[in-house]
Amino acid sequence: MAPSSDQSNDHLVHSSDPHHPANLICELCRKFYTLGWVTGTGGGTSIRQHDHLFIAPSGVQKELMEPTDMFVMDFHSREYLRRPPNLKPSACTPLFYAAFSKRGAGCCIHTHSQWAVLATLLVEREFGANACFEIERIEQIKGIPKRRGEDGKRLRVPIIENTAREEDLTESLEAAMEKYPDTYAVLVRRHGIYVWGDNVHRAKTQCESLDYIFQLAVEMKKLGLPWT
Amino acid sequence: MAPSSDQSNDHLVHSSDPHHPANLICELCRKFYTLGWVTGTGGGTSIRQHDHLFIAPSGVQKELMEPTDMFVMDFHSREYLRRPPNLKPSACTPLFYAAFSKRGAGCCIHTHSQWAVLATLLVEREFGANACFEIERIEQIKGIPKRRGEDGKRLRVPIIENTAREEDLTESLEAAMEKYPDTYAVLVRRHGIYVWGDNVHRAKTQCESLDYIFQLAVEMKKLGLPWT
Amino acid sequence: MAPSSDQSNDHLVHSSDPHHPANLICELCRKFYTLGWVTGTGGGTSIRQHDHLFIAPSGVQKELMEPTDMFVMDFHSREYLRRPPNLKPSACTPLFYAAFSKRGAGCCIHTHSQWAVLATLLVEREFGANACFEIERIEQIKGIPKRRGEDGKRLRVPIIENTAREEDLTESLEAAMEKYPDTYAVLVRRHGIYVWGDNVHRAKTQCESLDYIFQLAVEMKKLGLPWT
Amino acid sequence: MAPSSDQSNDHLVHSSDPHHPANLICELCRKFYTLGWVTGTGGGTSIRQHDHLFIAPSGVQKELMEPTDMFVMDFHSREYLRRPPNLKPSACTPLFYAAFSKRGAGCCIHTHSQWAVLATLLVEREFGANACFEIERIEQIKGIPKRRGEDGKRLRVPIIENTAREEDLTESLEAAMEKYPDTYAVLVRRHGIYVWGDNVHRAKTQCESLDYIFQLAVEMKKLGLPWT
Repeated sequence: MAPSSDQSNDHLVHSSDPHHPANLICELCRKFYTLGWVTGTGGGTSIRQHDHLFIAPSGVQKELMEPTDMFVMDFHSREYLRRPPNLKPSACTPLFYAAFSKRGAGCCIHTHSQWAVLATLLVEREFGANACFEIERIEQIKGIPKRRGEDGKRLRVPIIENTAREEDLTESLEAAMEKYPDTYAVLVRRHGIYVWGDNVHRAKTQCESLDYIFQLAVEMKKLGLPWT
Repeated sequence: MAPSSDQSNDHLVHSSDPHHPANLICELCRKFYTLGWVTGTGGGTSIRQHDHLFIAPSGVQKELMEPTDMFVMDFHSREYLRRPPNLKPSACTPLFYAAFSKRGAGCCIHTHSQWAVLATLLVEREFGANACFEIERIEQIKGIPKRRGEDGKRLRVPIIENTAREEDLTESLEAAMEKYPDTYAVLVRRHGIYVWGDNVHRAKTQCESLDYIFQLAVEMKKLGLPWT
Repeated sequence: MAPSSDQSNDHLVHSSDPHHPANLICELCRKFYTLGWVTGTGGGTSIRQHDHLFIAPSGVQKELMEPTDMFVMDFHSREYLRRPPNLKPSACTPLFYAAFSKRGAGCCIHTHSQWAVLATLLVEREFGANACFEIERIEQIKGIPKRRGEDGKRLRVPIIENTAREEDLTESLEAAMEKYPDTYAVLVRRHGIYVWGDNVHRAKTQCESLDYIFQLAVEMKKLGLPWT
Repeated sequence: MAPSSDQSNDHLVHSSDPHHPANLICELCRKFYTLGWVTGTGGGTSIRQHDHLFIAPSGVQKELMEPTDMFVMDFHSREYLRRPPNLKPSACTPLFYAAFSKRGAGCCIHTHSQWAVLATLLVEREFGANACFEIERIEQIKGIPKRRGEDGKRLRVPIIENTAREEDLTESLEAAMEKYPDTYAVLVRRHGIYVWGDNVHRAKTQCESLDYIFQLAVEMKKLGLPWT
């Protein structure tokens, strides 16, 4: 594919259908902004549709994005089919790709939620650097698919250590996916969370349920209530 | 009634009147989403109009619902007059039904409010598993109908234990309604709350007043201020 | 004035001018709802324009009010020039009236802000039942007119005790106005606050500044930071 | 320039381009209001475009501003090219000017964020009056340009003491700019923060990233988690 074509292919992101990935990413990110998940250009979102990956760019105000700001990557060749001029691809791209390729995800969301960050700090202090986040018997846990062979009462979310560059998280994210084959999310210490799902609906609602649980868990700690 | 008719009967949910139950449930759930009450498909709402019960479906993003997503049940036969294809009936249905049949409610709201969940955890730790939530002398208590023969200074909300399946809460919810014949709400430990009222206006404003009180109560605990 | 005329006089509340009091009260209350000040029909707002007092009704969802829901009272006769059928006058009316008659206010706002309620509880525990809320050297204090002869570094807001019926607060509110002739606000223990100003702009911004300070003060207590 | 022209020059603020500074300031301030940064007329915003400085007025409800409310100052002469009648220039003007003249900023934002105020109080108690706010190894720190020769792991924001009059902060703000030549922000004790950036996008997203970090830092203190 000639480099010149990278900057055209606008038809890939132009659609009057509100469920087109380029439109959905913009709508989701406006919602995520009001939830405090993508403050100050942080976080990101990607959707897979057939062999096209639609990815929000790096360093933009997420609540102001337009469909024409989207990058489009071919799933198989990992080459960009569309690169908006003057924008940089997201450093989250290899992490989103792991969710699509290793888990068959249809959507992957990365947030800088403060509740997620605080949960990783509390786990580190109380259970050490290699511990998962674990909580039991909260109804909202049912909003996240349960592990095979478990009764769904306990939620476990693995935590990986942060790195200086976002793309350097890929290896440990993939290792966490191997070690926790049923998880739909990986926390990143002092950083945030990656959540994926079979489709946009599931990724978004699982991300909400997890954030609800992290917020509840932080409030429980303030009140001296145990997680398990 | 023939099964085929379950999926038609669209006229039951099509109305240009904003006060039609199918429209009201959508509007209420959009508001409840911003209040954090129905995060991640959690919670639900049902309205009774004459012999029709309008019920939000299970597992949908509550802020995105459309009137055509509503289930309609006949109050007497408990059969569905309308079943949207591809959607599942809410597991809250028997609990909503208890409010309609045992209390003559016109509307019942179920939220996963974190303040309600935290209140149930604080009550359990301090007063034991069989205790009610109780608080005194807060002006907002006047937003909830007072118990017969009481001066309205003290609010009591019974708490039932959570179950693995939502529908299994029905028995204990009905028992709490028997034991507390004046209550308009039942808390569910580690889960949320069911609130009902004579009509939509009352159910919604009583739910707001209760949530205000639970939030205040949690903040009071953080500050070491007693509830009674 | 004949009773029949109470329910007409619709021209008093119909205006295409967004600054007309009947329109302003609706707009303000929608904003106050999102701030958590008028949850569950709580709180209220009144504006004086010449000899007409425009007053939000009792027991309505404040974010849904329409201009036609407004009561209009004559300042001199204290008789209603307009009474919307099926609505009850606000129990706050005599308290709003005190701000108009004793202080020459142009607008008076009553909120159930949780920060105001928590501030009254913290003052009671630490300084006793007759103490004012006092805080020093916070920039936002400049948003509230300073007391004559003071340098504006310290904010004092008197607190009155709550009563079973809202209208029974009138006497102690008026007494607080006498004792603190420079105050633009009176806190009500376990209940909320009344704030007034020379006009709508001032009442609204002073109410915001005070609420900011109460929230900050509560957070300071959680962190062990002294108010003075 | 004749004084009469101060009040005309409306063409300087009339534009259908949403990126015109007079339009941008209004849009930003509406957003800042919902973030709690400009409550009760507090805070302010200024944008430089070529030799024109556009400045929000003093004492107005920031979420209700219109482009015609903007002051326009000539960068070189520091004279007003446009003065809206009945409005007062912002007391922040000399502080905004310092960011434009000493740092080449394209936009400067002043907020009364409670998280910023609480951070200044916590630093004072724990590290003394002359200490900076310092925090380490939080991913969101990458949202703020790093100091030359540093690895970006640690964020330092200088704090200056508040003064009775806002304009009297200018000297110490300029001194902090000298002492911390790489900083894009200066905290003001018990007051708020000034944040600037090369353009509107950067000033706004840096301000968001800083506020996120102050909020996280305050929550960390409540949970007993160390900043460094």
